[in-house]
Amino acid sequence: MQIELAKKLGFCFGVKRAIKVAEENRDFDTFGPLIHNQQEIDRLKLNFNVGLKKNLSEFKTGDKLIIRTHGIEKKDLEILNERNIKYIDATCPFVTKPQEIVREMSNFGYDIVIFGDINHPEIRGVMSYASGHVSVVLDISELKTMRFSNKIALVSQTTRNIDDFTKIAKYLISEYKEVRVFNTICNATFENQIALDELSKRADIMLIIGGRESSNTKQLVKICESNCQKCHHIEIADEIKNEWFANCNLCGISAGASTPDWIIDEVVKRISQI
Amino acid sequence: MQIELAKKLGFCFGVKRAIKVAEENRDFDTFGPLIHNQQEIDRLKLNFNVGLKKNLSEFKTGDKLIIRTHGIEKKDLEILNERNIKYIDATCPFVTKPQEIVREMSNFGYDIVIFGDINHPEIRGVMSYASGHVSVVLDISELKTMRFSNKIALVSQTTRNIDDFTKIAKYLISEYKEVRVFNTICNATFENQIALDELSKRADIMLIIGGRESSNTKQLVKICESNCQKCHHIEIADEIKNEWFANCNLCGISAGASTPDWIIDEVVKRISQI
Repeated sequence: MQIELAKKLGFCFGVKRAIKVAEENRDFDTFGPLIHNQQEIDRLKLNFNVGLKKNLSEFKTGDKLIIRTHGIEKKDLEILNERNIKYIDATCPFVTKPQEIVREMSNFGYDIVIFGDINHPEIRGVMSYASGHVSVVLDISELKTMRFSNKIALVSQTTRNIDDFTKIAKYLISEYKEVRVFNTICNATFENQIALDELSKRADIMLIIGGRESSNTKQLVKICESNCQKCHHIEIADEIKNEWFANCNLCGISAGASTPDWIIDEVVKRISQI
Repeated sequence: MQIELAKKLGFCFGVKRAIKVAEENRDFDTFGPLIHNQQEIDRLKLNFNVGLKKNLSEFKTGDKLIIRTHGIEKKDLEILNERNIKYIDATCPFVTKPQEIVREMSNFGYDIVIFGDINHPEIRGVMSYASGHVSVVLDISELKTMRFSNKIALVSQTTRNIDDFTKIAKYLISEYKEVRVFNTICNATFENQIALDELSKRADIMLIIGGRESSNTKQLVKICESNCQKCHHIEIADEIKNEWFANCNLCGISAGASTPDWIIDEVVKRISQI
């Protein structure tokens, strides 16, 4: 069986940067998971003693903290400053961007519409920068029940699909006078999606490697499932089952933006042995 | 044969307003056709001595001028002011709006994209307000050969179709970081189109009444042709031919935003006699 990696896959700029920050700041703790990949978080704990605290109340003055790639809420940042807790900001610059846009547009009196998952930490952070009206939606049907002013600013979760985003934009443009559309989908997400789309149309079986909580990995799985009948979302090589590969000539592999190369390597090694 | 008028048709707000201006300002001349309807222009000349001059050079100090509904170019307005020519501005407020947007966005450093016909006087006027980069397009294929900065402001000719406009928006959103979309399509255009769409799906024959140069009338014809096999674009009742109506049970009628009621009445009267 032939194995082929998608032309673009795995670590994006923001994740690479955050890993570097963690490796260079031994003994710090991250506030929430640094990235959505448990195995890499375990490695950072083991090799660099970078821990994980899930609540802000666990930090006190003098503690050393790393802000995760997905960013944090505005009020939490204010608390850190008030408590004089030293922090290094590993928020991905592509996430800081929609935070800034939401703050600025909100101050200018625009109603904010965010295309994304309201339960995702990135979106919790981004929406917290709105000083006025803010809505988070995943589907046009939700928009139809809402009314906005005639000045709307639209941003996207960085890991969403561009076609879904433009559908939301199209609806708003038809209904309202001014829609200021900020395409905040990050290029890495976009490039990983395009490369996966191409490969998954040719492959007999596809493995998508990435954290179960990882939004961009879930997007890859969604695209993959529409192209390939055998599509498996795995976190680690040990999840692979030999019987998946019966009658398969080409096994394609892609990985989310928070999936480290060493896990991809382990998966390739494991499949090669089948 | 039954005759049915579209639920919304004919004169829009801007045209009604311009006609009123002309009727109240006997002996004035319009700079270019006041509206795209020759018959109504002839009536204004006959009844109110409102003439038509096609070139600015024909006006001199002391002359009394009406600016047409489609607006004029910025440099021409400056010339009027310099030459101290008295003018009454009958530019439709829905056309003034994109002029203002283009001026403001251009000053803010946005690249301007106008969805419309570069040869139409409305668009000649709107684009003249750009101080920087401005492009006028009718199709995505044109955009693909162009490169813009990452800040784009998009406006539409007031008489365009919303679906075509959102296609342009969708392409730009996918390719660029910020697209500020101003939906400048006027409601009257929109309402006439929706009403025509509904009627033309049921009618055996459709008559669309309006000037050959009228952009919004041409849009109506385009929509009509996709719904109804027998679709005739006429300017006046005299163009109607009896043989068109063979085997027709329902004749639908719509009219462009610059078509006066008296022409619509003449058409209805003419068909009733068949």
